[in-house]
Amino acid sequence: MHDHSVDDRAFADEIVVRLRSVLGAGGDAVALHEPCFSGNEWDYVKECLDTAWVSSVGKFVDRFERDLCSITGTAHAVAVVNGTAALHMCLKLAGVEPGDEVLVPALTFVATANAVRYCDAFPHFVDVEERTLGVSPAALRDHLASIADLRAGVCFNRRTGRRIRALVPMHTFGHPVDLDGLLPVATEFGLVVVEDAAESLGSLYRGRHTGNFGCLAALSFNGNKIVTTGGGGAILTNDPDLAWQAKHLTTTGKISHPWRFDHDVVAYNYRLPNLNAALGCAQLETLPEGIERKRELFRRYRAAFSGMSGVRVFEEPTDCRSNYWLQALLLDEDRAVVRDEVLAATNAAGLMTRPAWTPMHYLAPYVGCPRMALPVTESLARRIINVPSSQQLVGGGA
Amino acid sequence: MHDHSVDDRAFADEIVVRLRSVLGAGGDAVALHEPCFSGNEWDYVKECLDTAWVSSVGKFVDRFERDLCSITGTAHAVAVVNGTAALHMCLKLAGVEPGDEVLVPALTFVATANAVRYCDAFPHFVDVEERTLGVSPAALRDHLASIADLRAGVCFNRRTGRRIRALVPMHTFGHPVDLDGLLPVATEFGLVVVEDAAESLGSLYRGRHTGNFGCLAALSFNGNKIVTTGGGGAILTNDPDLAWQAKHLTTTGKISHPWRFDHDVVAYNYRLPNLNAALGCAQLETLPEGIERKRELFRRYRAAFSGMSGVRVFEEPTDCRSNYWLQALLLDEDRAVVRDEVLAATNAAGLMTRPAWTPMHYLAPYVGCPRMALPVTESLARRIINVPSSQQLVGGGA
Repeated sequence: MHDHSVDDRAFADEIVVRLRSVLGAGGDAVALHEPCFSGNEWDYVKECLDTAWVSSVGKFVDRFERDLCSITGTAHAVAVVNGTAALHMCLKLAGVEPGDEVLVPALTFVATANAVRYCDAFPHFVDVEERTLGVSPAALRDHLASIADLRAGVCFNRRTGRRIRALVPMHTFGHPVDLDGLLPVATEFGLVVVEDAAESLGSLYRGRHTGNFGCLAALSFNGNKIVTTGGGGAILTNDPDLAWQAKHLTTTGKISHPWRFDHDVVAYNYRLPNLNAALGCAQLETLPEGIERKRELFRRYRAAFSGMSGVRVFEEPTDCRSNYWLQALLLDEDRAVVRDEVLAATNAAGLMTRPAWTPMHYLAPYVGCPRMALPVTESLARRIINVPSSQQLVGGGA
Repeated sequence: MHDHSVDDRAFADEIVVRLRSVLGAGGDAVALHEPCFSGNEWDYVKECLDTAWVSSVGKFVDRFERDLCSITGTAHAVAVVNGTAALHMCLKLAGVEPGDEVLVPALTFVATANAVRYCDAFPHFVDVEERTLGVSPAALRDHLASIADLRAGVCFNRRTGRRIRALVPMHTFGHPVDLDGLLPVATEFGLVVVEDAAESLGSLYRGRHTGNFGCLAALSFNGNKIVTTGGGGAILTNDPDLAWQAKHLTTTGKISHPWRFDHDVVAYNYRLPNLNAALGCAQLETLPEGIERKRELFRRYRAAFSGMSGVRVFEEPTDCRSNYWLQALLLDEDRAVVRDEVLAATNAAGLMTRPAWTPMHYLAPYVGCPRMALPVTESLARRIINVPSSQQLVGGGA
């Protein structure tokens, strides 16, 4: 058993001091992540109210979708009510059916697994790698080689008998996963790829925006994201047919007609209101500046923690340009036992920090789901500490 | 076959003239329903932006929920992302399980049926009555008497073998359904009652606000509703345990903790953003005035159409005080064939009108669902024409 010694307390205190050297020495409370409204947010939202176009149809929804396309380089974007809804629709459109399994990282926010269950399918948890914090191509290949049968190009889990339909890599904290490693595994095993890009708006993998590497991708604009619409999300795709279906399925499946209410499918009310899209349009205008600030914040944290042993600041994988949405400290394995002491000390000092999400296979509703051995997920979950990441912590912001 | 004669054209033209006598003789286009922002909308929304509290937690969400309780008289209200989500959660909380059937009016917006399917249950369509436009207690009792078996107090459909779990009366266009007639039928057959009060905010049945008569109720604040949040909804209940579950299930099932992310159930991201709640708080302040205007608009329409044969303005049922959310003309049966000509003439004249929703049993995804004979639904669907209903069509509004 670990002795919570003076040394541990000194380690936790040292982290507080180094964080404060970046965040300002005053005793002010610092949130983990706050939105930054420094552009046209007021003007666009007020225009919505003045014109009374606040709801499900309106020019800001159309513009927001176009702006997302130009930022991400995808051909189509469909704005929806939040990232969870986006992911739910992506999985449906990817052909996930009741009783299927979907490969999902064990280190993720619970929405990734929940969206699978909304399709009456089962998440199948795979391990991540420390270099990207995302799904490990090597571990995934080894696992599938041992449990999967390919029958006429369709992947089945030999142990459960279920079809494995899709792979959902998630770009953790905005850092792109190893797509060059993962895509051949997906091809080899006949898996559809849906990117969970909820956290990675503005993040590039080998110069190309995340969200372009699978058949569909989901974005989130929750209040804690780099771009917020209050709550919101989007479906990205380069396939025009899937884009049409995404719009249809998220707008109650209504057949276009000036007055008739006909609906040809059991569909969803997942439209993003125009009011929220207006906020999003303004937010997208300042995204490049926001990313620059977040990258600068990373550099300041890295400098502040250089020379301190037992902890490092997580850095984007090679060949990637990350949005550094959420900054993360990574404790050495032998310091993992001090994590809760660091969380307590930082939060007590007014610096809001948190651990990574509880791994999915530890959660009551998912404890019985299929999975591989998850040593890296379990290690990272003991060692990650997210630290204040708002862009306005670097110069000029509100 | 009906001969679309000069007489039919004269009938349609006459309706245009009488509508114009209420709506103003100018050629201005008149929408079916537009929001009215005449109060503190901008102040509250601006406060959200200024404080950067736009997302899932914030003082306006709490206030909006409290304000809904004081208006409806229910003990608890949980704000959610739209009316469809509210209804989905109500059904889950009412104990609707996969394979159950849920009794739903055939004359409703498709969301009522969709919400049942989200629970992997089946809508079972029941007829409405012309007096209320809502579920007919007599037809429901006759139907259940002929197809239902009660086994230990649980209702089963003898034909399908499925359990019939719940009854979802909908207050059409804001007019309360015959609750005194329906509640004893629900009790007799062991059905849980969930009110679809999406359209009836502010409507009273025998002096008590709709939404208080079942175990749960769903409200909608879509852009076309009497109170809008852009998109939004709420779950109402008088049961504190159901209220706690409603909040938990709509906020990802997260167990409260300053930094841990534990979730004890497969839950939903159905939170209403604070930005939208801010709009809703301002809207609720002017609701009483809005209802007065809508009731006045009804009186003007009624006066304008008095003396015209073949059509009448739908009037609230006795013992009810309706919000008159959406005004409806009701054609006589022998004029039903002229409906499309009236729709065409009114829309061509810039007066936006529409028929009632296509009855659920006509829609492709629901054509095979269990149902009773639906003569009144089918008749009303041929005869209803909704006409411009915005509150600002009566004096003083924006």
